[in-house]
Amino acid sequence: MSLRSALLSLLSAEPMSGYDLERVLNETSGYVWTAQSSQIYTTLRQMERDELIEAEELRTGDRTRRVYRLLEEGVEELRRWAAEPVAYGAERDVAHLKASLLNLLTLDQAESLFRAHLAHYRQRLMTWERRIEGIESGTSPILRARLRAAAPDEHDALIAFKLLGYEGSVIRARGEIEWAELGLARVRRLREVTELVQSAK
Amino acid sequence: MSLRSALLSLLSAEPMSGYDLERVLNETSGYVWTAQSSQIYTTLRQMERDELIEAEELRTGDRTRRVYRLLEEGVEELRRWAAEPVAYGAERDVAHLKASLLNLLTLDQAESLFRAHLAHYRQRLMTWERRIEGIESGTSPILRARLRAAAPDEHDALIAFKLLGYEGSVIRARGEIEWAELGLARVRRLREVTELVQSAK
Repeated sequence: MSLRSALLSLLSAEPMSGYDLERVLNETSGYVWTAQSSQIYTTLRQMERDELIEAEELRTGDRTRRVYRLLEEGVEELRRWAAEPVAYGAERDVAHLKASLLNLLTLDQAESLFRAHLAHYRQRLMTWERRIEGIESGTSPILRARLRAAAPDEHDALIAFKLLGYEGSVIRARGEIEWAELGLARVRRLREVTELVQSAK
Repeated sequence: MSLRSALLSLLSAEPMSGYDLERVLNETSGYVWTAQSSQIYTTLRQMERDELIEAEELRTGDRTRRVYRLLEEGVEELRRWAAEPVAYGAERDVAHLKASLLNLLTLDQAESLFRAHLAHYRQRLMTWERRIEGIESGTSPILRARLRAAAPDEHDALIAFKLLGYEGSVIRARGEIEWAELGLARVRRLREVTELVQSAK
């Protein structure tokens, strides 16, 4: 996933300024992409040169904003990117790897790892569930913009696939919560065994 | 996760040559870490200079192999790494992101994406389940080496946590399979709606 595809995806909802894009990228995509201001502006300029987007100067009072609009070639590039098969690569889940080494640590340290994992994914789960609610209740501003831009007979597919993106994240977060709970149960069992051995001595 | 921690983790099971490490890394960790030969050798030399490991020359017939053994400082570094809190960062699941853009594609293209996702994670699931079987049946060679190196009262924790690492991957793969099936069901429903609309015209 490149920042370029992320920006094209957002601009396919509605024209936005660099400032808007940065805010939406860090708020709504948050955990998915993160990008620095300077990277965003460099990529926008490159996409402008490649004629994927065009900028328009908008004046509000004495302030001028450059607002970017997706061109047909930009839609095409986004479409090509979405259609490309996913290149599945190495999976680096640091928490799962650390778990396999926890015998090197105390049970208290092992417990901390699982508690942190649980807290992190509970937080994530809430975020994703809120996004899904926003789509289902029709209050998500970016979905509203996308629906305005799309023909009525495309609305079903648009909503169905937007939901699916977030549902993937929900399923993932629930799995991680299940795993952290399994880890905590295993730490408890090891603690009981240790206590039994201690008291038998 | 650095290659350094991966190599330390493998050497904590038993002494190995660079060739063994490369083979085990690409076979058993496979999807978790992948590393080029040259990276592995550079990292081993650095770790030797840092006195985390030491090399011994072993002769078999007219061949000489350098076999690396973990030193106490190496165990300490691995322990410190395992105890460090996980730095949870951006999550870039390309398939989930593409799913949210599938309204740009035909339903056939969308279906291909989910079929590929399903095939990929079914394959992964089989791999992880085989690893778990190897641990539970006691046939995993690397686990046997680890058990030989550990005190008997550490065996329970060692097995429990090794299993947990792979169980995390199993839960993850099952979740992705569930999600791909949800995607396929959604494509089917959209297809039915489209056909209904077509036949009503």
